[in-house]
Amino acid sequence: MTSNQPPLWRRAAAELLGTCLLVTIVVGSGIAAQQLSPGDVGLQLLQNSTATVLGLTVLILMLGPVSGAHFNPVVSFADWILGRRIGSGLTLPELATYVAAQTAGAISGSVLANAMFEVGTSISTKERATPGHLLAEVVATAGLVLLIFALAATKRGVLAAPAVGAYIGAAYWFTSSTSFANPAVTVGRIFSDTFAGIAPPSAPGFVVAQLIGGAIGLGLLLVLFPAAARAADDVVLPHSSAAAG
Amino acid sequence: MTSNQPPLWRRAAAELLGTCLLVTIVVGSGIAAQQLSPGDVGLQLLQNSTATVLGLTVLILMLGPVSGAHFNPVVSFADWILGRRIGSGLTLPELATYVAAQTAGAISGSVLANAMFEVGTSISTKERATPGHLLAEVVATAGLVLLIFALAATKRGVLAAPAVGAYIGAAYWFTSSTSFANPAVTVGRIFSDTFAGIAPPSAPGFVVAQLIGGAIGLGLLLVLFPAAARAADDVVLPHSSAAAG
Amino acid sequence: MTSNQPPLWRRAAAELLGTCLLVTIVVGSGIAAQQLSPGDVGLQLLQNSTATVLGLTVLILMLGPVSGAHFNPVVSFADWILGRRIGSGLTLPELATYVAAQTAGAISGSVLANAMFEVGTSISTKERATPGHLLAEVVATAGLVLLIFALAATKRGVLAAPAVGAYIGAAYWFTSSTSFANPAVTVGRIFSDTFAGIAPPSAPGFVVAQLIGGAIGLGLLLVLFPAAARAADDVVLPHSSAAAG
Amino acid sequence: MTSNQPPLWRRAAAELLGTCLLVTIVVGSGIAAQQLSPGDVGLQLLQNSTATVLGLTVLILMLGPVSGAHFNPVVSFADWILGRRIGSGLTLPELATYVAAQTAGAISGSVLANAMFEVGTSISTKERATPGHLLAEVVATAGLVLLIFALAATKRGVLAAPAVGAYIGAAYWFTSSTSFANPAVTVGRIFSDTFAGIAPPSAPGFVVAQLIGGAIGLGLLLVLFPAAARAADDVVLPHSSAAAG
Repeated sequence: MTSNQPPLWRRAAAELLGTCLLVTIVVGSGIAAQQLSPGDVGLQLLQNSTATVLGLTVLILMLGPVSGAHFNPVVSFADWILGRRIGSGLTLPELATYVAAQTAGAISGSVLANAMFEVGTSISTKERATPGHLLAEVVATAGLVLLIFALAATKRGVLAAPAVGAYIGAAYWFTSSTSFANPAVTVGRIFSDTFAGIAPPSAPGFVVAQLIGGAIGLGLLLVLFPAAARAADDVVLPHSSAAAG
Repeated sequence: MTSNQPPLWRRAAAELLGTCLLVTIVVGSGIAAQQLSPGDVGLQLLQNSTATVLGLTVLILMLGPVSGAHFNPVVSFADWILGRRIGSGLTLPELATYVAAQTAGAISGSVLANAMFEVGTSISTKERATPGHLLAEVVATAGLVLLIFALAATKRGVLAAPAVGAYIGAAYWFTSSTSFANPAVTVGRIFSDTFAGIAPPSAPGFVVAQLIGGAIGLGLLLVLFPAAARAADDVVLPHSSAAAG
Repeated sequence: MTSNQPPLWRRAAAELLGTCLLVTIVVGSGIAAQQLSPGDVGLQLLQNSTATVLGLTVLILMLGPVSGAHFNPVVSFADWILGRRIGSGLTLPELATYVAAQTAGAISGSVLANAMFEVGTSISTKERATPGHLLAEVVATAGLVLLIFALAATKRGVLAAPAVGAYIGAAYWFTSSTSFANPAVTVGRIFSDTFAGIAPPSAPGFVVAQLIGGAIGLGLLLVLFPAAARAADDVVLPHSSAAAG
Repeated sequence: MTSNQPPLWRRAAAELLGTCLLVTIVVGSGIAAQQLSPGDVGLQLLQNSTATVLGLTVLILMLGPVSGAHFNPVVSFADWILGRRIGSGLTLPELATYVAAQTAGAISGSVLANAMFEVGTSISTKERATPGHLLAEVVATAGLVLLIFALAATKRGVLAAPAVGAYIGAAYWFTSSTSFANPAVTVGRIFSDTFAGIAPPSAPGFVVAQLIGGAIGLGLLLVLFPAAARAADDVVLPHSSAAAG
């Protein structure tokens, strides 16, 4: 851990808050869309994806200097793997802390969205695991990991906020699964029986597909950007711009 | 007050004009949406939120160098509080001037929108205060304050224009209240009995919720960005880039 | 005329091409919207405004280094007025050339859009001049002029492309007239009897309102940005970045 | 070939992957739109174009440092022509490799989209070649080539990612053909009998129109930006920022 990083507890707080708000954005805008445009599911998804593009970009921008703004266990896991090659990146205890904070945050995000819309928190009944959707999660997560670490490898981590937001916005549409691409968010979305929810039986398949996608994304990264491993400590936003007091 | 700031009267004029145009954008695009897409409230909100993302970003960009582009009493209030810790930021008389200019501007913005659409100016009858909506205003305003001052604390005030625009665009959707998050705008929106209006009985609750949200946002800021207080004079756009002659 | 500017004929060609493509974008996307979403005028306008935000931004980015990317007689006129105070900006013959090129380009843009959509070129029958719409044109053009020259006055002309695109995108919605804000474009839009057309009897009122708006915009500029006159040669994109060979 | 470029095999892999994902985005979001918004073709196109703006921008950003992110034979061809004047740019064998990689990638992109949505891969039956559509392809491709090389000529290749994304997003709407503007993508879109498909009999006309458009774009470039030929090795993203290890 480099000396100019915020302490782990503060980084964990940022991961928890960021993942919480990310799920609040996804679930909340889904509820709003469902209530306001009941006649057209495509229009609902356009509202849902537009809110997510904007909101996710802002969250990464806002919290990147504190924790790197991973908000996603696959990203933290990839950061750990890449970092092991050169002795930087997250350590294993840090990785565990990040993943725990992300998962707790994601669940609380569903609860917060439900509360704002006065919808009871209950377990989703929306089955999503089909072969096409699982393939889609592999593709979506591979692209996400490749994108984030390609930007880091080319010293353009400062572009991660709008780039990741835009990527997810596109992936809502070009994948059949609407691109969860995030195990913590997948778990969080179990806790709202609304537009963006996912039934528990579908979640494990999604998470496995995301992990496979993450591995493929790392493979593509090492083929296309062989310098990537040397830049692994620069994800998502350079920690050197952190404002820890 | 640092010597390279524009005089207070000019900053107040910028706050008045900016808040006026902000409300014109919110109310005007709401009227257009209601007239042009009568069959789908969600589509109306998408038009309303899209116009606001674009317009708010431009207003902050345009007037930031003059007044900081607060356009929001909660932001000015937070600037004053943070500034007291280190002797910078708005003084109390400046704060009062800003809030008065913002409120007058917001009301005139509704009147201007009504005039362009040839809709009479009358008091809104749209009740909005529900427990869920009040919680939503707390969340929306906390996020807004955290965002603005996190960018300032990390010397990225130059990103405030697109970031705040994008944030509000997301918050239209992920909150149940469509995210007023601004006491002056709340007052201004009383004066149009159209899509974006708010009935007077609902306004006080919204304002109180926004003030609570602002306090929570400041609290989160000090936890996550302990350096924030030292950067409070850098909101929203660095005054040092001001072009006052 | 500074020595590193492209010759006038090339700048005029850029103004002609840029204004042509701007009108092609506005008129063409209007026709597409009308044909593809016949059931909802608001959805048509959303398609029309979205295409214009993206396209206008790109045109200013692309042609700014050649001619300044005015594409608008009001902008050229304001540039000439501001420039007279300090001996820079367009000269009167250059102004006349710009306006002629813009107008010719705008008309050809309607013809090109009509041809692509295999719609005959004919004079629009869409009456638009109402008191509300004329007020809207004043407001829209004042804001546009204030925005462009405020960015120039604060040495941020490089942001003009996305800022002007975003501004017009918002103004489509917050004004009742859908924000023509451009005399050349107004003339060009006469030549397509489709979604974006304007009947000849409505055009003179629109142009007069735009000129009044331009004057108000300049007045606001001088109040809020007294340094503006000294920076008038920096519109829309700095000529110093021109790539004339 | 300058010494700091990645080896050709890696650049070809980037062109293949990028063009594959571009077609996956176009075709996949078209299928999603068609399934989710069956009642309004314009809304489908808005979903399709929005996904493409975001996705194409991200792909250029991500892979530009490896291969220049052409993803389009017309762009590679123009790069070769401009480069011949000054001995830089692609060589003829590199050009052939790029075009082959782009075409193979485009076809695989359709197959991948079909698989995610569990739609069988079959040849499109959607006839598109009309005089208006062919004119539209000329216009769309001319503008695309002019844009890309104008940015390169003015040392702003770093803006190509959002600019090209925005341009295509506008061209979806202001052209009658929805702007293919890319021979490889045209071929790839043959292999999905869905929203974004094109029937084989229509493809040759589209490709010829695109080549004519590319030539016109180059002509406009040399008129407006005479310095262009000297900057041809700077497309789309500066190779000098490449991170090849």
